[in-house]
Amino acid sequence: MHQPPVIALMTDFGLEDAFVGVMKGVIATICRNAQVIDLTHSISAQNVRQAAFHLDRSIDYFPDGTIFICVVDPGVGTTRRAIGIEAGPYRFIAPDNGLLTPIFERWPDAKCHELTNANYQFANPSATFHGRDLFTPAAAHLAAGVPLEDFGPAIDVAECARIELWQNKPFDDGKGWTGEIIATDHFGNLITSFEAEMLADRGNWMVTVANAEPLPILRTYGEVEQGKPLAYIGSSGMIEIAIRNGNTKAELGIGEGGWWRSDGVDV
Amino acid sequence: MHQPPVIALMTDFGLEDAFVGVMKGVIATICRNAQVIDLTHSISAQNVRQAAFHLDRSIDYFPDGTIFICVVDPGVGTTRRAIGIEAGPYRFIAPDNGLLTPIFERWPDAKCHELTNANYQFANPSATFHGRDLFTPAAAHLAAGVPLEDFGPAIDVAECARIELWQNKPFDDGKGWTGEIIATDHFGNLITSFEAEMLADRGNWMVTVANAEPLPILRTYGEVEQGKPLAYIGSSGMIEIAIRNGNTKAELGIGEGGWWRSDGVDV
Amino acid sequence: MHQPPVIALMTDFGLEDAFVGVMKGVIATICRNAQVIDLTHSISAQNVRQAAFHLDRSIDYFPDGTIFICVVDPGVGTTRRAIGIEAGPYRFIAPDNGLLTPIFERWPDAKCHELTNANYQFANPSATFHGRDLFTPAAAHLAAGVPLEDFGPAIDVAECARIELWQNKPFDDGKGWTGEIIATDHFGNLITSFEAEMLADRGNWMVTVANAEPLPILRTYGEVEQGKPLAYIGSSGMIEIAIRNGNTKAELGIGEGGWWRSDGVDV
Repeated sequence: MHQPPVIALMTDFGLEDAFVGVMKGVIATICRNAQVIDLTHSISAQNVRQAAFHLDRSIDYFPDGTIFICVVDPGVGTTRRAIGIEAGPYRFIAPDNGLLTPIFERWPDAKCHELTNANYQFANPSATFHGRDLFTPAAAHLAAGVPLEDFGPAIDVAECARIELWQNKPFDDGKGWTGEIIATDHFGNLITSFEAEMLADRGNWMVTVANAEPLPILRTYGEVEQGKPLAYIGSSGMIEIAIRNGNTKAELGIGEGGWWRSDGVDV
Repeated sequence: MHQPPVIALMTDFGLEDAFVGVMKGVIATICRNAQVIDLTHSISAQNVRQAAFHLDRSIDYFPDGTIFICVVDPGVGTTRRAIGIEAGPYRFIAPDNGLLTPIFERWPDAKCHELTNANYQFANPSATFHGRDLFTPAAAHLAAGVPLEDFGPAIDVAECARIELWQNKPFDDGKGWTGEIIATDHFGNLITSFEAEMLADRGNWMVTVANAEPLPILRTYGEVEQGKPLAYIGSSGMIEIAIRNGNTKAELGIGEGGWWRSDGVDV
Repeated sequence: MHQPPVIALMTDFGLEDAFVGVMKGVIATICRNAQVIDLTHSISAQNVRQAAFHLDRSIDYFPDGTIFICVVDPGVGTTRRAIGIEAGPYRFIAPDNGLLTPIFERWPDAKCHELTNANYQFANPSATFHGRDLFTPAAAHLAAGVPLEDFGPAIDVAECARIELWQNKPFDDGKGWTGEIIATDHFGNLITSFEAEMLADRGNWMVTVANAEPLPILRTYGEVEQGKPLAYIGSSGMIEIAIRNGNTKAELGIGEGGWWRSDGVDV
């Protein structure tokens, strides 16, 4: 049996308004059998970098063929381009503002077309809600079987906008790494820019945030007592800091943009 | 192939509790193949007027045949009626409290039946959660093919409850309009009661809110510098005020119920 | 026609992050035709008791065969077991931490298997996100038709973890009941541990919270004036306290963990 297409949505629209609901109405109108999944709508307003991070860490968990609609779009209504991408097993519909940087890094030979064909967007689009009037109709027509070539002229992905993925790249002074806290999650855990892979080349590590004691990198919360902090490899592959059954952000008073420091310890 | 029915949900239930999840369980029990879309669950508690506004601005983006369950219901458990409506290509299930006023204005010949047939609601309904026990079962049975006539006696829509859609209607003193801010959105943008159509009859316009400078009506955020305010025609067709990459509600300290003033400027 | 399987999700993950979206991607990858319903993702962090309560009060509204994924899991990554349950018409996938206590009480002969078969979970699972790497893959394979026996060894449910469902059980001093407020909802209504069934054995009742006047138990909000408090049998079968069109939690300054007192009144 033919499988229904999957469309995943990532925006900074929040869930207080009808924005996301209306996008789903548009999908149902154009491609009734599409299966719609909310990846997240809680990207911080206009935070293209955060969207790129979450997208990069999420796509591997979606089925082949998934179409990701990514709308974090501070330049809506200006001359920034709207693009459609085929990359590996996935497809992406997004503004050309760097949000797809990790996709271009993984698949440098991705196919890209500008979304200009008026047949696949709404007439008289609003200047401020391209999520509804341009990106979603395009994604739904793509899901319904329109080939990417039909949406507009081909673009070399080398010409697509790119961004730095960390506001401040971690740097190595020979004794250890220093970097930033790139996000906090629902539980108040701190997600650092310290990739688990960076652990490979030296002995043990201690991680320090704010004025807390240096923390060893453990496996999971249950390895420390209630209310005690720990570092661990988070589910996104980054080192995270948590307080067991506590809210680290609130208790340490540190969040996105804060700094961490890690030092290798001789073994 | 027969298309699955679409049911859209609009409530003031929020997403913190299991209210909405349980409604979806009820739908799946009665009409398994229904496709359920959350229009929004963030209507302010008991704010029938706000629900009417969002409904009116959203329905055109949904496919023909969509059934809208609208539950903002301060009179739950009292003698207020529960009604089912067929209007244009859509169907609506709601309390008879004025929430559907814009629907009756658009389709004065809408068909209306009171929802009294006990076969299509739960036995021993709670007195406080008709969303689960009455409205959702009715909508799911309607989606499953029960004709509207079977739900209860016909009502003339002229006898259904209506409300004023703006708490304070915009008024024209000959030189310009004065009105209220009817809502703010996730980004802190201000949505005014000033419809884009009201622009037609005079020259240029300047919009003023709070103590800010009069603002020209532009197309989109990118036309002003970062941190600067602008007015524009929002995606709902109303004039909105935003600060580019800022939160207008927080920065100007003005929100729902605040006042705006617009003056025509000779050309 | 074969009906698509229903999977209901209950977690304490919130909706700010991509956690829930990624779980849905995993489901779509393994069992494309599953219909996914969010029961709630707003259980308080690590609050196993609250999850048990909401699950107990919700499952009857879901269709036979529904698979509930319940992830409130303070012991993630430790030696606590992961279990799959068949109980009455439903199936449950959860950590063995007492969350399923009400299920075991209703169905003491439930079938239980530990989830150990590596074929039905991800290789190299993270130590902190078993929702993605273990529970969801297991549920999706179950939905796709893998029999529960294949997931791992049988466990006697009598050996599964249980919890007390109320932090403080209501007690009867002969004149009335005293108990706690177990939750508040989106509207600020107070949900007490006073079950409607406890009303049966005596005359009328008055309910007192905080320093408010004793309240009679009425049917619905509309029976008191705007801004006035009342007690009533809530939709979950517990006595609740609300202020009509008000927020009781905010106005009375009382919430989860607060105390109520009810006294029978001679008739």
